Amino acid sequence: MVGEAIASKLVALHYEVMMGSREAKSPKAVAWAKQAGANAHTGTFADAAAFGELFFNCTHGAASVDALRAAGEKRLAGKILVDVANIIPPDKAGAMSLGEQLQKAFPETKVVKTLNTLNCELMVDPGKLAGGAHTLFMSGDDPGAKKRVRELLESFGWKDVIDLGDIKTAAMTEAYLPLWLSVWQKLGTATFNIKVVR
Amino acid sequence: MVGEAIASKLVALHYEVMMGSREAKSPKAVAWAKQAGANAHTGTFADAAAFGELFFNCTHGAASVDALRAAGEKRLAGKILVDVANIIPPDKAGAMSLGEQLQKAFPETKVVKTLNTLNCELMVDPGKLAGGAHTLFMSGDDPGAKKRVRELLESFGWKDVIDLGDIKTAAMTEAYLPLWLSVWQKLGTATFNIKVVR
Repeated sequence: MVGEAIASKLVALHYEVMMGSREAKSPKAVAWAKQAGANAHTGTFADAAAFGELFFNCTHGAASVDALRAAGEKRLAGKILVDVANIIPPDKAGAMSLGEQLQKAFPETKVVKTLNTLNCELMVDPGKLAGGAHTLFMSGDDPGAKKRVRELLESFGWKDVIDLGDIKTAAMTEAYLPLWLSVWQKLGTATFNIKVVR
Repeated sequence: MVGEAIASKLVALHYEVMMGSREAKSPKAVAWAKQAGANAHTGTFADAAAFGELFFNCTHGAASVDALRAAGEKRLAGKILVDVANIIPPDKAGAMSLGEQLQKAFPETKVVKTLNTLNCELMVDPGKLAGGAHTLFMSGDDPGAKKRVRELLESFGWKDVIDLGDIKTAAMTEAYLPLWLSVWQKLGTATFNIKVVR
């Protein structure tokens, strides 16, 4: 669901996109590509890694390291990986965040953690809520990668993106997830986000 | 600092307040009471527990159970305890939140977790920031206690108080603390809060 939302947005922004899956002919991926248009492609995780210059990790957090190993460490090297995933429930505090785990497992890839604090409809269309007057967080070790990702996020409609610092700060946004889930349950809708009022 | 901010606010709202400390004549508490006026009193934790009908736990999270044991379980029984404290760094996820620990340790006391997600100046004066247009969370098992605390918070100026549910949901706001600390570090000021935009 997250992958389709982001992939569709990228196609709408005129990028060529390949949806990587465990199987080359994943029925869900094929169905998505069919309705998404000529710039939408499908393949294995390895196909997508060979195809792309920037990746979104939209796999389940608990499966992300394995999925990216299947994509291939060398194919991901030197490129940007936007890690959108969460492990639910979060690992024990003190355990390493998923964002940091990915950066350690793929040291030649530039991991940027972002978009993991809200619903996928809002990820790609923040203007849907309060004219986009709410906040997104970003963490990563590589300033150039964060600059590129910030531009991409701005093209999605994001206006307030707070760069928390290096990839270790991914732990902070991942630890916010239980509160997000609790507010979701309370409000009865996932169409909400937090704004850092300052 | 947190205790003084809340106690001063309560005195300003014409409540009689006793600041409980380990020692009856704590110099800091005595100095506070001297400038706070005739409704400000000082004593031991046990004195404060005997004096009050509603308590704020503003001790360090790691010391809270011991401080409240010193206050006396029987003296706290049947009364409301507003738990403002945090354990920094937070305990391991999966470990029990401080709010829930206090409710278990003092089963006859009505624990309400709130105000633990922001700086003490904003706790007692939310209008200082964006006219009070930001969010506070509340957790607790007793609906009557939460109603009473909500009224008190509204008298502080709070307009958007989200009741997340029972005391187990205190874990969610306590887990937000690392993100709060990270944003504080990034912004260089503690005068901020989050607003749940919906």
